[in-house]
Amino acid sequence: MTNIGIIGSAGRMGQALAAVVPDLGGTLVGGIDAGGDAVVLAHDADVLVDFSAPSALEGTLAAARATGTPILIGTTGLSPTHHALIDAAADDIAVLQTGNVSLGVTLLAKLVREAAERLGPDWDIEIVEMHHRHKVDAPSGTALLLGEAAAAGRGTTLSETRVADRAGLTGARSEGTIGFASLRGGSVAGDHQVIFAGTGERIEIGHRAEDRAIFAKGAITAAIWLSGQPAGRYTMGQVLGL
Amino acid sequence: MTNIGIIGSAGRMGQALAAVVPDLGGTLVGGIDAGGDAVVLAHDADVLVDFSAPSALEGTLAAARATGTPILIGTTGLSPTHHALIDAAADDIAVLQTGNVSLGVTLLAKLVREAAERLGPDWDIEIVEMHHRHKVDAPSGTALLLGEAAAAGRGTTLSETRVADRAGLTGARSEGTIGFASLRGGSVAGDHQVIFAGTGERIEIGHRAEDRAIFAKGAITAAIWLSGQPAGRYTMGQVLGL
Amino acid sequence: MTNIGIIGSAGRMGQALAAVVPDLGGTLVGGIDAGGDAVVLAHDADVLVDFSAPSALEGTLAAARATGTPILIGTTGLSPTHHALIDAAADDIAVLQTGNVSLGVTLLAKLVREAAERLGPDWDIEIVEMHHRHKVDAPSGTALLLGEAAAAGRGTTLSETRVADRAGLTGARSEGTIGFASLRGGSVAGDHQVIFAGTGERIEIGHRAEDRAIFAKGAITAAIWLSGQPAGRYTMGQVLGL
Amino acid sequence: MTNIGIIGSAGRMGQALAAVVPDLGGTLVGGIDAGGDAVVLAHDADVLVDFSAPSALEGTLAAARATGTPILIGTTGLSPTHHALIDAAADDIAVLQTGNVSLGVTLLAKLVREAAERLGPDWDIEIVEMHHRHKVDAPSGTALLLGEAAAAGRGTTLSETRVADRAGLTGARSEGTIGFASLRGGSVAGDHQVIFAGTGERIEIGHRAEDRAIFAKGAITAAIWLSGQPAGRYTMGQVLGL
Repeated sequence: MTNIGIIGSAGRMGQALAAVVPDLGGTLVGGIDAGGDAVVLAHDADVLVDFSAPSALEGTLAAARATGTPILIGTTGLSPTHHALIDAAADDIAVLQTGNVSLGVTLLAKLVREAAERLGPDWDIEIVEMHHRHKVDAPSGTALLLGEAAAAGRGTTLSETRVADRAGLTGARSEGTIGFASLRGGSVAGDHQVIFAGTGERIEIGHRAEDRAIFAKGAITAAIWLSGQPAGRYTMGQVLGL
Repeated sequence: MTNIGIIGSAGRMGQALAAVVPDLGGTLVGGIDAGGDAVVLAHDADVLVDFSAPSALEGTLAAARATGTPILIGTTGLSPTHHALIDAAADDIAVLQTGNVSLGVTLLAKLVREAAERLGPDWDIEIVEMHHRHKVDAPSGTALLLGEAAAAGRGTTLSETRVADRAGLTGARSEGTIGFASLRGGSVAGDHQVIFAGTGERIEIGHRAEDRAIFAKGAITAAIWLSGQPAGRYTMGQVLGL
Repeated sequence: MTNIGIIGSAGRMGQALAAVVPDLGGTLVGGIDAGGDAVVLAHDADVLVDFSAPSALEGTLAAARATGTPILIGTTGLSPTHHALIDAAADDIAVLQTGNVSLGVTLLAKLVREAAERLGPDWDIEIVEMHHRHKVDAPSGTALLLGEAAAAGRGTTLSETRVADRAGLTGARSEGTIGFASLRGGSVAGDHQVIFAGTGERIEIGHRAEDRAIFAKGAITAAIWLSGQPAGRYTMGQVLGL
Repeated sequence: MTNIGIIGSAGRMGQALAAVVPDLGGTLVGGIDAGGDAVVLAHDADVLVDFSAPSALEGTLAAARATGTPILIGTTGLSPTHHALIDAAADDIAVLQTGNVSLGVTLLAKLVREAAERLGPDWDIEIVEMHHRHKVDAPSGTALLLGEAAAAGRGTTLSETRVADRAGLTGARSEGTIGFASLRGGSVAGDHQVIFAGTGERIEIGHRAEDRAIFAKGAITAAIWLSGQPAGRYTMGQVLGL
């Protein structure tokens, strides 16, 4: 049994994480929120899972290093300074920082990268995603992650190839670009599709999240895997053995 | 047998129209292009089909009125002046002017309007379309036509409800809006989907054109129907009996 | 406020019904299971909602008639005898019996019927559905309901046109048939799609249930509507004003 | 320029092959049908492309071996005897025999195999395909090829896991099975989708052929690649460098 401690345990994701721990063969040893004692939690846990705020990260990482406890970081909005702190912590402990904790999406990104590598520039790449009506940004972080995978497969970067939206007199499509489209409505947990459109044929690679619980399950699965790793910085792809 | 005359016969659509006439039980009596004699053509034909340029419309309508020949107008880029000419012609002859000659899309628009009428404003409406890489405008005319059908079903207009694209910090979705997304790539003849996204469920109504020949077939089918109608201005919906 | 009484309140659907009553502006006045007193419940309620077993139906209908209480019946596996009992009860009270309580599916069936009516027999109709791995029958009741709507639109019946599955040397498709395909896997709450495949184009009309709560919501919405109706036998289509 | 000779040049595929040769940088040196002289053709060609009948295969292979000419074989309905002849020929010349010449489908099969390898048996696999109304067998050869790729990824075979269709009281889905569903209608050139359905999420990997010309293009592209290879038996995957 892996003992799991949750940073940000009162948030929506923190509660979802706690709910899935038993099903995945873990034991919840405790959770803290702003003001909680990270050192005590880190001492009790085999691995920490952090979905809190960037401002807490420095203290959390210090506690994890002091106790030698691996940590999965799903907190969003990190700055380069935070990434430098994470890199430094990875000298002492196993760290996995990611903007996407779905195992399905992790595999999808791998498949998208491979398809982009194999298909020539005459296959146009378009990414379309749909989320619920309350989502406040577009495209989704996962759509961008898939776009980065496609760009990497082609030996380029997303910033050089991204077309954010199309409206009005756009002109013909430029070769090598990657287009994004975002739909919003209802209660959609998250659908993503990457379309490779060639002459006379299309390949479509997609993911449908039916339920936000998959993100909690992915995070806890990754955390249990991480608890047995030596110091270093890891990715979700490694959890799946990709 | 209906005798069909084509205005703009040398263009891509003109050639496609000529190709499908025999299969649909018509007879091609001739075709003209810029500089051709519309009166002679109109005299020989039971119905004219015009996919040429707006500049030719005034002369064409005069010829059709002079000979009492019904006319289907698929020319795009018409101004209010052109529409006034069409309305005047409809006093004397049967006229059908439309930006969409697909029978499938015509039915789709009817279904979309009805769904929008029945579903309350808590069902968000999104329209996504994909076309080949050479298309120079977005959204497609058909997507806008479907959006207008949805808006009409809700007792409003598209100009009051349209959200053209989403990128960056968009904020939550506003109730009652109709969102559009345009994908471009490969050789896609034209896919359209209207999504009604409610809480916990979605209705999706879509059309896939596999082949641009369907537009020629729709136009000739409508023209044959039009050849038997009295003076007046008609719609594609009437061709289908909607 | 409409007072709602639930027959079969301890079952999975019964609990789901109770959970959504307050959100929809109703009041739960009580629930019974096998052995419970239907007359007392019917006396307290403005409308009864029955998702129990066929064996309880005779007693439940007698209680509803005795107290003049409308009743929505979602119980499955009813025999012709049960239907005769329901018809008789409809002389005294408002009754709505249905195998499908989703408002979205109800609208979908209407759209499917209309499309089938408008499109000639050269448009082939195929129905594909996907449900979770635990579902024990195929095709789903909703797929059959959609097939019946399509057949009715064409002026025929499903039993004359249904093709249950395809495997091996099937020969070419027969005109006028309606094909069914069933997919099973994962935790899919219920996806249905009706495809009208013509020459060169397709119309696709589909429904995705993200969450089984929509069935409870549809049932309670219908029950509240039913509570104000005079004696008679009603359909879900009438709830939506179709 | 690669000189290409076509066996079965008068058939539908033979004509489609001839049409795409120039666009792909090849030169058509000739074509034969039943009774034609394969040795003369093989002598003139850098590579042969055979979409004729199994009965012609023995003579064609003898001609190819005699002249040292590589050969792509797309003929269907081959027996074990034919495969033994092909294996023997591969001692002397480069041979590529395949039931699928689409480059897109070849890549798809690779992605499906990889996904099946990475996802545990709690992800159910379903394969659905749609083809035009004239297709006489089900499932399609490509669907079976994708099923074999999925089974191989799981370390099993399709014959052990295949569920051909579902109708009636099927019972719950058995873990590890691979389900197939076939839709038929209209003029669909060929759509395939492999669905991996997990708990709370789905991965969907699909291919849409808009136009049968892609099969001719894939065959000629593969033939040009094959013309430069040493003796041996090759696969479509090797053409794409998979």
